[in-house]
Amino acid sequence: MNERMHDLGSEPSAIRELFSYGLRRKAEIGPDNVFDFSLGNPSVPAPDAVRRAILDLMEKPASAVHGYTPAQGSPGVRGAVADSLNRRFGTSYTADHVYMTVGAAASLSICINALANPGDEFIVIAPYFPEYRVWIETAGCICVEAPARGDDFQLDLHAIELAVTPNTRGIIVNSPNNPTGVVYPTYDLVELANILRRKQEKIGRAIYLIADEPYREIVYGPTQPAFLPLLFENTLVCYSYSKSLSLPGERIGYVLVPPTMQESRAVYAAVCGAGRALGYVCAPSLFQSVIERCVDEPCDIEAYRANRDALYEGLCALGYECVAPQGAFYLWVRALEDDAQAFSQRAKEHELLIVPSDSFGVGGWVRIGYCVEPQVIRNALPKFADLMHSYHDAPAR
Amino acid sequence: MNERMHDLGSEPSAIRELFSYGLRRKAEIGPDNVFDFSLGNPSVPAPDAVRRAILDLMEKPASAVHGYTPAQGSPGVRGAVADSLNRRFGTSYTADHVYMTVGAAASLSICINALANPGDEFIVIAPYFPEYRVWIETAGCICVEAPARGDDFQLDLHAIELAVTPNTRGIIVNSPNNPTGVVYPTYDLVELANILRRKQEKIGRAIYLIADEPYREIVYGPTQPAFLPLLFENTLVCYSYSKSLSLPGERIGYVLVPPTMQESRAVYAAVCGAGRALGYVCAPSLFQSVIERCVDEPCDIEAYRANRDALYEGLCALGYECVAPQGAFYLWVRALEDDAQAFSQRAKEHELLIVPSDSFGVGGWVRIGYCVEPQVIRNALPKFADLMHSYHDAPAR
Repeated sequence: MNERMHDLGSEPSAIRELFSYGLRRKAEIGPDNVFDFSLGNPSVPAPDAVRRAILDLMEKPASAVHGYTPAQGSPGVRGAVADSLNRRFGTSYTADHVYMTVGAAASLSICINALANPGDEFIVIAPYFPEYRVWIETAGCICVEAPARGDDFQLDLHAIELAVTPNTRGIIVNSPNNPTGVVYPTYDLVELANILRRKQEKIGRAIYLIADEPYREIVYGPTQPAFLPLLFENTLVCYSYSKSLSLPGERIGYVLVPPTMQESRAVYAAVCGAGRALGYVCAPSLFQSVIERCVDEPCDIEAYRANRDALYEGLCALGYECVAPQGAFYLWVRALEDDAQAFSQRAKEHELLIVPSDSFGVGGWVRIGYCVEPQVIRNALPKFADLMHSYHDAPAR
Repeated sequence: MNERMHDLGSEPSAIRELFSYGLRRKAEIGPDNVFDFSLGNPSVPAPDAVRRAILDLMEKPASAVHGYTPAQGSPGVRGAVADSLNRRFGTSYTADHVYMTVGAAASLSICINALANPGDEFIVIAPYFPEYRVWIETAGCICVEAPARGDDFQLDLHAIELAVTPNTRGIIVNSPNNPTGVVYPTYDLVELANILRRKQEKIGRAIYLIADEPYREIVYGPTQPAFLPLLFENTLVCYSYSKSLSLPGERIGYVLVPPTMQESRAVYAAVCGAGRALGYVCAPSLFQSVIERCVDEPCDIEAYRANRDALYEGLCALGYECVAPQGAFYLWVRALEDDAQAFSQRAKEHELLIVPSDSFGVGGWVRIGYCVEPQVIRNALPKFADLMHSYHDAPAR
């Protein structure tokens, strides 16, 4: 068999491993005594509009609901997505600029394969979602890490500029960010666009900005995430309804190929080709129709905001160093020793399941996913206090 | 961008092109005057059990229905699939042998990527589903065509034996067959297994049989399709509910990695790894639950059988040479001139949309998909008579 695939399949990620440990541990000592912050699984249920849309669709003939759609998605849902973006961002997209996908992972994997030739480089901002590397390398490309700024985890524009080479095909930008929870301010993104334009001119061809935006709607302020195609013409948007409509298992999202992009129709064709080549026939048809009906359904972020406030204020009060969380549902906290894995391990002894930053390509921090029930945070704070004290009593081993 | 992806995305298949032409033509001259046999889109609607299962699931909390499942699928649906296979084929599979996928295309693409290293060869039996080549080449492998027998389109075992080289990683077998409608008899498959075993011994490692089985239940007799893992140990089964439950748009299927296979657990891990590498996070969660409830729902083939009888008998009576259709919903008919594309073109002038065999890697035949309303066949037969007469009046141009 293929050894790389074997290794990818047999080494579950640290995140999945922690989650599995949590399930076992809950069975041992009771679910209320384990504080699982490992996953990014939305705790807010899908809005009732989704259920109503499904019930409504069940009144239609089955073949109209469950049949093949065109590979790029039904014209109806693509038009609805384009119209919704136009209303929000003042753009003038049409169905022809939207390609429906089986979620954000598919969107990214398809974009990378559509754009790249083997040996091309894609820049990621470390810390980063670990699957970026997997998809980049699966396409035969090279994952080049540019560090975020060490203090606030915002874009380090100088580091990005240094990372661009004549082989750079694209850069993946994820704001609001998983794992750090930061939102990039518009002035930094404008400057990023300027850098990319200068580099494009220098290397004589397009560099693509891939905007990975599953958390676009989950923002607490004050910074509002810019819509990247408005700042940089060669931007592809990878979106998913996993987080905003709490449908992570249903695998539904899209790629937007804006008409302002260089050779936009050819890039769209390559997106279609990559979807075909990877075995994606069409996005799930029922959920295409659901999205067509629910495209403007607001994302309910108040539960996440309350969790964020409780966790951020609670941990800061205990003396933890946290990056101010502006979006998504992750808090990025400095480990109490240099070795984040050892810190995560000691947290586990206090029944706190938090992901060491090594999973995201940097050392020394942990990700705390706060898409949990509020009482998990309330009851975990004393454990975080104990964890802090344990380092006073017995520093890093 | 990537030129290959661009080309794959901008050259729609002959099948899709015919279908699109059909839609335009129906708008011009009325839907009853165009006879579209181009697609393999089930004409029988999904059974009502699917609708009932969805309505039932809508009573559950949304997070239980739409949340992430494990990458390989929920334990419940995998167990249900295994139990169903065990009841039908006397096997002893468990949930650990089943990996849920986003349909057969994903199943095949994942298996090829899991098994192969670049440069490896996969054998396909020509004529064959054209996407096989796309997926094989996307994995960096070589698609080796072994012809079926020229008269009845059964397996040409000698041709297969000749096609095996030290680089052969696998062979894709599709029975009931798209495009020919034949079902391979067990004695030929037993002999195929013997050939593969001999070749395995010779080259000193496994050769995998990939059984592409979306049409397993759509069989009219007399030949019943054998369950290939019972005949050859290194068989992976790629299944989809697209045809048997008429859910082609929902993208739900599975890969079975039987425990009898050499290094079965490692191959299963590679399947998980390939799913991850290609961007498949999990199969759509709602339809995993639907399949768990509908796994033993019978496939209603009577409408297809009636169509098959009407079309096969009708065309034979007109003097067309047809391969006796035993399964799936395709009739394989010899073109009335050597150039199948020219024949398909002339058929189009009679408003008959039929796919030239060049799409499937061979010349001289056409595929007629009879998953249509019965009146389409009834009203098309006079057109097929006209088409036949047109060749008497004016032979191939």
